[in-house]
Formats: sequence, structure tokens, C-alpha cells
Amino acid sequence: MSPKDWSQEARTLGRRARTAARQLAAAGAGAKNAALRAMAENLRAGAKTIRKENAADLAAANQAGLAAAMIDRLTLTDERIEKMARSMDEIADLQDPVGEILEGYVRPNGLRIERVRVPLGVVFIIYESRPNVTSDVAALCLKSGNASILRGGKEALRSNLAIHRLLAEAVASQGLPADAVLMIETSDRDLLAALLRQDENIDVVVPRGGESLIRAVAEGSTIPVIKHYKGVCHVYVDDLADLDMAEAICFNAKVQRPGVCNAMETMLVHKHVAARFLPRICRRLSQAGVALRGCDETRRIWPDAKPATDEDWYAEYLDLVLAVRVVEHVQDAIDHIARYGSAHTDAIVSEDVRRIRRFVQGVDSSSVMINTTTRFSDGGEYGLGAEVGISTDKLHARGPMGCRDLTTYKWIVTGEGQLRT
Amino acid sequence: MSPKDWSQEARTLGRRARTAARQLAAAGAGAKNAALRAMAENLRAGAKTIRKENAADLAAANQAGLAAAMIDRLTLTDERIEKMARSMDEIADLQDPVGEILEGYVRPNGLRIERVRVPLGVVFIIYESRPNVTSDVAALCLKSGNASILRGGKEALRSNLAIHRLLAEAVASQGLPADAVLMIETSDRDLLAALLRQDENIDVVVPRGGESLIRAVAEGSTIPVIKHYKGVCHVYVDDLADLDMAEAICFNAKVQRPGVCNAMETMLVHKHVAARFLPRICRRLSQAGVALRGCDETRRIWPDAKPATDEDWYAEYLDLVLAVRVVEHVQDAIDHIARYGSAHTDAIVSEDVRRIRRFVQGVDSSSVMINTTTRFSDGGEYGLGAEVGISTDKLHARGPMGCRDLTTYKWIVTGEGQLRT
Repeated sequence: MSPKDWSQEARTLGRRARTAARQLAAAGAGAKNAALRAMAENLRAGAKTIRKENAADLAAANQAGLAAAMIDRLTLTDERIEKMARSMDEIADLQDPVGEILEGYVRPNGLRIERVRVPLGVVFIIYESRPNVTSDVAALCLKSGNASILRGGKEALRSNLAIHRLLAEAVASQGLPADAVLMIETSDRDLLAALLRQDENIDVVVPRGGESLIRAVAEGSTIPVIKHYKGVCHVYVDDLADLDMAEAICFNAKVQRPGVCNAMETMLVHKHVAARFLPRICRRLSQAGVALRGCDETRRIWPDAKPATDEDWYAEYLDLVLAVRVVEHVQDAIDHIARYGSAHTDAIVSEDVRRIRRFVQGVDSSSVMINTTTRFSDGGEYGLGAEVGISTDKLHARGPMGCRDLTTYKWIVTGEGQLRT
Repeated sequence: MSPKDWSQEARTLGRRARTAARQLAAAGAGAKNAALRAMAENLRAGAKTIRKENAADLAAANQAGLAAAMIDRLTLTDERIEKMARSMDEIADLQDPVGEILEGYVRPNGLRIERVRVPLGVVFIIYESRPNVTSDVAALCLKSGNASILRGGKEALRSNLAIHRLLAEAVASQGLPADAVLMIETSDRDLLAALLRQDENIDVVVPRGGESLIRAVAEGSTIPVIKHYKGVCHVYVDDLADLDMAEAICFNAKVQRPGVCNAMETMLVHKHVAARFLPRICRRLSQAGVALRGCDETRRIWPDAKPATDEDWYAEYLDLVLAVRVVEHVQDAIDHIARYGSAHTDAIVSEDVRRIRRFVQGVDSSSVMINTTTRFSDGGEYGLGAEVGISTDKLHARGPMGCRDLTTYKWIVTGEGQLRT
């Protein structure tokens, strides 16, 4: 197609979504929840079809020589499909955010002022290889009364199309518009670019995936974008920490799933406990295959660590690699995080309330963890059912975004003829 | 200065504000409220100085031949200065938004999850001629723990500098950083452009004023912008309206202050009451000097109206001009508003709950008024103390923005060593 055709195609998609959104905004919680349960049932019933299409995607991925981690993310088993369905049921069980009266009061002149939650309208989600994102975000958008436009990675296209067909069928079977969930069937970048200029019909874009994808989306979009670029997460081990707890937390934060955005990338250790703490944690991490990059003081205590450069402090390894730094005090840790961090998730391990208070106050990140692992920074773990994405922006939504973050509000002012003087 | 110097100047300003913001974020409600009361007192004590500088601005404005409406907005009297001071006292009386626990709960694994309100950081406000905006927004930013960078119109520069000096003095007198409120002393557009690229140090930009200024800011900014372009406000008079009330509301919405964004620009009248309602409201509006532009049906009933073109339906007159259209039914009114409106403020006058419900549901505007005038769409009237601006965006803040809208939140997760499995 010529560029002109792509912009026409984008406009058509945008308008279909907008029309569906208008209908969805008026749909009651009952209808939406019935659709969500039907979607879950359809996924279960269609598991065989999904696996067949997924097998085709996997064969192509293997042939293309994709990395093992990528193949793992792409793979759908019966267990994973059941988990996707269960997540939809859980989203159906959540309270409907739409119609919530956020506040209401009467002014001295008798005007009744209410702020009422309403859907955003049309949400455009761009993501990469994991096909479970398709069902999660479709469900969160529907729950919050929004139409969704989904664009997954091309390596998962057949899986995604199979999932999408089952979801759209289920939505229509419950009397809601099938266009409530639209899927882009091509990975053409010109169509993506054209969609990112559909600000008239699309209200928000949420890109998930690698930093370069997200930067390209943010730069090319005339639609507001909610995003996080990367997760350079820190754990600060205070000198007043329980060191057994600190060891368990640091190990979990680095090793349990190193390839995700809420894994620890830099460990900061108070100088008063460095000599006691570093040998035990470094030994355990090394045994688990973690490559260490340390500051001078770290290397004095644990000489096996390679020297860390300034780039290491900025790095999101997404791998079994860890930067380690000995800090002077809690403020030094806070300053390090302000300089090198990504405002995603940072943790303190300490038994002292003052240190904790200071860290929580001083670290300007979307999630601050106290005596627990950064790996819990996640919509599901926060009880949001699933997550649309994680935001390190400050406006609108911060941290894991659930279906509530896909809403806005409307002021409704009721009078009996009041005039302004 | 060379362009390079401007970007250096912008960076210096941004960093000063960021440093002040870090201190303000840690300031308690007591310190902030003491500063606000000192600011109010300083305005009162300095009223004579302010009037002197204002007189100089006014002399220059008169010499430049500025429009009467502009001169009026620029003029500061003792009464207006007292009103500015009183508004600051009122803002001091508001509850401190910072530290509010928006929600808090315990997960099955014992993790305590809290969402706590925190300041945005640094707020950049760009506005035009009214000097009272200087004190209003400085106060709202300080209350919410944000540093502010203010850039007023050049015609009000001397007045603004006098006000700013008094405010900054008061802030410093209470032990808070004087850089908490910064004022740009030049109207140079290169400095403005450089500031709009200070995304590292400035968290949000709120431009207030004419549509062209706002578009220029939105297009040139790498910082998120919250804005409204214009206010094309409608009043829909239903056939089930109390016509006495409808007449009073329409007259008030158009005539009480026609030059502002929440004044009515188009009146929509149900065809069943057009013959009864139009003659009385059109007579009264005409007597008040309002020029009418009507659809064919309007002109059949009130031939003095000039024919309305498509441009009239889109127009924000900000003047004693009104577009009038007879509609078939409430859905016709909703469709007109969706097509021509600006999502600012739209009103229905009706005694029928179903019509009202349908209008409120169908009109996707930031404020929907029921049986009252659009003129009440205002932060002060909604009880927000004053307003930072009005947003017709859907993300973050919608409608009149108070100091709460200058905050974000932080997730705080407290554990006792929980790990992710």
C-alpha cells in the first residue's frame, strides 16, 4: 500500500474503535463481566487451536534462531493458557471502576459537585513477544469500558490472532461490539506510524517492550504515551539491616527472574556492613552464575568482581550480571539512585524506622520497597488483577497500571437554576 | 545572548527549581501554610508598590493601544490585591494533599501496599495578562509541595515582578527556599523554547491563554503539557425544561462575562420549545447587545439572527456573539457537541431525569452542568481554592485543576523479608 493508504487504514481502524468505545462506555458492569467470563471460557475451549498456532510461531522462531529467553516468553502451554483464562476471571471479579464517584460535595450556593470515573475511550497497546499480554490487556481495557487496539510482536502473530479471534467472538456473543478488541494483523511500521497520529480517535498509547521500541513510539506519537523506558532497580542494604533477610532479598531480586524490568541491577551496601555482607552474598550470587562488577571498595573485599565503569551504574543488564557499590550512608544511596536510576523500583533493607523514612522520602521512584524484593513490583502482585504496563512517568499513572489507570473522570455539576454573579 | 546561552540559562533555572523542589517535598504542611500566610500578608503590605508598578504597566498598555478587555484584566486595584491575598489564605486553609494515603491494603502474602500522594516536582506555568494568576499559581504549587517557574505576559511584567518579589521574600522568611517560586524576567521566546526542553528538571507545563500560544507550547515542548485549547461551551435547552430557568441560565452563560472560556458560545434548543423559547431569550440577549447567528429554523422564528455558517458552530467568540441552533432531540444536541465542541463545559436545562442521564452519559466533556450556567466551571467555584488551569485533556487531570492535580503518587510496599517464588 502507498503511505496514503496506510493513513486511511489507520483512520478506519481508529473510527471503528471509537464507535465501539462509545457503546462500551454505556455498557453496565454486568454485560462487561459476562463478556470477560465468556472470553475466559473461549480461551479454555480454544486451547488446542491456540497451541497449534503457537507451535507454528515457535517453529518459525526456532528456525530464525531466536534466543532461548525469547522462545520461552513466546511458548504457550495448557497451563499458561489456563493462567490467562484465570486472569480474565479475576479481572471480571474486580470492582468496576467506571461510574465510581471519586468525590461529591455541595457548595455554599447549593451546587452539587461530583467527580465521576469514566473510561478513557480507545487504548492502543504495543507489545512484543508474550502472547499472554494479548488477553491481559484486552481484558483490562474491556473491564474499564475502553476499546482496545492491540499490536503484538510479529514473532507471535499467529498465536495472537488465534487468541484475538476467540476473544472477539466471546465479546460479540455477549452483545458487546466485536470491535471492542481490535488486533493489527500486520507488523508494517508505516501502519504503526499512521496509527500513532490518530489522536482524534485514540486516547492513549501504552508501549511495552524494549527501550528502542518505546522511544520510537514516544517520539512518533501525537497521542499521549504512558511508558517506562527501563528498570534499573536498586537494593540498598543498610548497616542496620537484618543481613540474613538482606541476603535472601538480594538473591531473589537478582536471580529469581533476571530478564525482567523489576529485577535488581545494582546492589548498594552500607560501608559498615560491607566486610560482613559482601562475602556471603557475592559467594551465593557467584555460585548462581551471576557476574559481578564492583566499585573499588567492593573489589577490595571481593576481588573476583570486575571493576565497574560509569556505564555499569546506568546499565539494565536483564541478565545474570550485577553492579555492586559500597556507599557511605543512606543519603549516598539516595543520591546514587537519583543519578543513575530509572525511577522504576528501588528497595531498602533496614530495621531502622528513620533510615526507612529517609529512603522512602528521598527516592523519587514509582515503587519503593521496604524489606522485600523489587520483584514484587507488578500489577498482579499489587492486586490489580493484571497490568496494562508500568509507568515511570509522573503524570496520570505511576508504577504498575491496572484497569483503573485506563479511566479519567468527568465533573458533573447539578443545580436548580443557580447563576453566577 | 546566543542560543547556546539561553539553553544554559534554562538549565540553570531548571536546576535551581529542582533543588528547591527537593527541599519543598520534605516540608511539612505547617511550614508551607506559614509561608502561604506570609505571602498573603506581604501582598497586603506591599499593595502600594504593586499598584505603582501596575500603573506603569497600564500606562504602557494604554500607549500601545491595548483593547479595553485586556486593560481591564491587567488592572490591579486595592480590592483585587486583597482578593489575591484572600485566595492565598484560602489555599493555606485547604487540606495538604501531600502524604495523603490514597489507598492501603495488605496482600495475602503479608505485603503492605500503600499509594501515597507526592508532589510532581517542578511546575512551569505560562500565562498572559492577568497578574492575579501569579499569586494564585505560586500558592497552589507551594501548597502541593512543588517549585514553580512562572512566565507571565510581557504587558504585565512590572506588576508580576513586584508581586513575585513579595512572594519570594515571604517564602524565604519562613525558612523555605526562595527558589520555590521563580519568575522569568524576560519574554524572550528563545528562553521559553529552551525551558520547554528542560524535561530533566521540569515535570509539567501548564500554558494558559490564547489558542495559538498553547499550540506553540504543546508543539515545542519535550515536557508533558496539560492544557485546553478553547472553550466552545454549549447550553442545551430541552423541551422538558423550565423555560424561566432556561432563560436565566442562557442569559447568564452568555452575558455575565463573555470574554472567558466558560461562557456559552452556542445555544441548542429542542424543536418543540423553539417557538416559545427563542423569542423571549433572543429579545433579551439582543437588548444586552448580543449578536445572534442562527440556523434556518432559528431564523424562521427570530429573523433578526444572521445565518450561521459551519464556522460559527466551531467558533469561540469570547464576545457578545452567540450561535443558535434548533435540534431535533437530545441525541441531536449530543451529536452536535461531539462534532463541534471543545470538551470543556456543556450544560443541559431539563426537568426530566432520563434526558439528563442521557446527556450526562453522552457528552464527553470535562464538565457537564445540569440546570445551571456553564460559568460555574471554575476551580474557585468548585471549591479548589483557585485553579492552576483547565484541562480538556483526558490524562492526569480533567476540568479545573487545583493543587491536588499538581501531585502524583508513589507506591510504598512494606514487607518482612517476603520473596517472590
